[in-house]
Amino acid sequence: MPKSAKLRRSPQQDRGIESRDKILAGAKKVLSQEVTVKLSMRKISRASGVGLSTIYDYFPSKSSVLHTLLEERLKLKLQIFDRTIEESSSKEKLSEFIDHYLERMREEDFWSVYDMGLEQAAQNDNGLQALMDWYEAETIDRYVRALRLAGSTWPEAELRTVALYLLSVWAKFGPDRMGVNADSNPKLMEKLVRVTFSAVLKEVLS
Amino acid sequence: MPKSAKLRRSPQQDRGIESRDKILAGAKKVLSQEVTVKLSMRKISRASGVGLSTIYDYFPSKSSVLHTLLEERLKLKLQIFDRTIEESSSKEKLSEFIDHYLERMREEDFWSVYDMGLEQAAQNDNGLQALMDWYEAETIDRYVRALRLAGSTWPEAELRTVALYLLSVWAKFGPDRMGVNADSNPKLMEKLVRVTFSAVLKEVLS
Repeated sequence: MPKSAKLRRSPQQDRGIESRDKILAGAKKVLSQEVTVKLSMRKISRASGVGLSTIYDYFPSKSSVLHTLLEERLKLKLQIFDRTIEESSSKEKLSEFIDHYLERMREEDFWSVYDMGLEQAAQNDNGLQALMDWYEAETIDRYVRALRLAGSTWPEAELRTVALYLLSVWAKFGPDRMGVNADSNPKLMEKLVRVTFSAVLKEVLS
Repeated sequence: MPKSAKLRRSPQQDRGIESRDKILAGAKKVLSQEVTVKLSMRKISRASGVGLSTIYDYFPSKSSVLHTLLEERLKLKLQIFDRTIEESSSKEKLSEFIDHYLERMREEDFWSVYDMGLEQAAQNDNGLQALMDWYEAETIDRYVRALRLAGSTWPEAELRTVALYLLSVWAKFGPDRMGVNADSNPKLMEKLVRVTFSAVLKEVLS
């Protein structure tokens, strides 16, 4: 591809931004179809109506499309976390945190087929591990800060362990696992996760 | 190997049982050395003082040695579970179950280097998955029975989900994970697991 063509379609320009958005919307559409679908540049092209070569102008690989989409989703998750924690930072209100957080996540349609598809596609992509690690570290920091704000006097290192525990329980049994543990009872699992959170928070804040 | 030789060294005879025990003790010794050690028939031979060909008379493969050792350990675990639950089957005492269980497991030296070595060797052996599945199913049955005995009125299917949840939390964060999560705080993790068990049991028995 000639360099001039690449420049002409730079995302800096309006038309460029439009194409980029179309491509991402197409990828999202592909990932929203069914959980087992495999994302490919060809499928993105078909779903977005943007030609393959144009797609490659904006995204050098399927992995970079996934990176953009996953980053967007993870940043939104962190924002929701921040907004929710702002309102439940006192000791009394922290027990409500998990309910408000769940509610807001549902409002943003988390745990949709799209999120499961995105997560599944990401699992088969080692390059996205750094992004997931970044998200985990950010989340642990937020848990620790929130527990401090709520008045916990536990040492920093112990609060990090607590955060890691809660985060892992959430990752393994939380609502986004619904599709994975299809044979179990997701409503009950969610209840057990809540019971766990509330008991652990009570311990840390006692 | 001639059939007569095989018969002569059959485990039915005392000398046979002796060799068999020596072989298993040798394998145990190998697995107890350091967590990263790899079990091999050659190492078992060296550690037990039993010749390689004799070992093959009793155990057709390394996998069958592991099977015997792991089965022994898992059966002992179930026995400890049964003995402990017998004494804590009332609603009031069920909260003490986890403490007594941990205590007895420690008495039998569970979570030793040997157990970790055995588990690690088993992880790399797909053939042992059936044994692990059997153990998991047995344990879930026991949890459900114990919760019933303690007076839970929850439906069977929900009790199974609760059992699966507790078992998974235990498998991921329980004491035998010490070696794996070396960077975290095992004492605190154990505390968090206890808090989780006690909160969930309270919920199920309320």
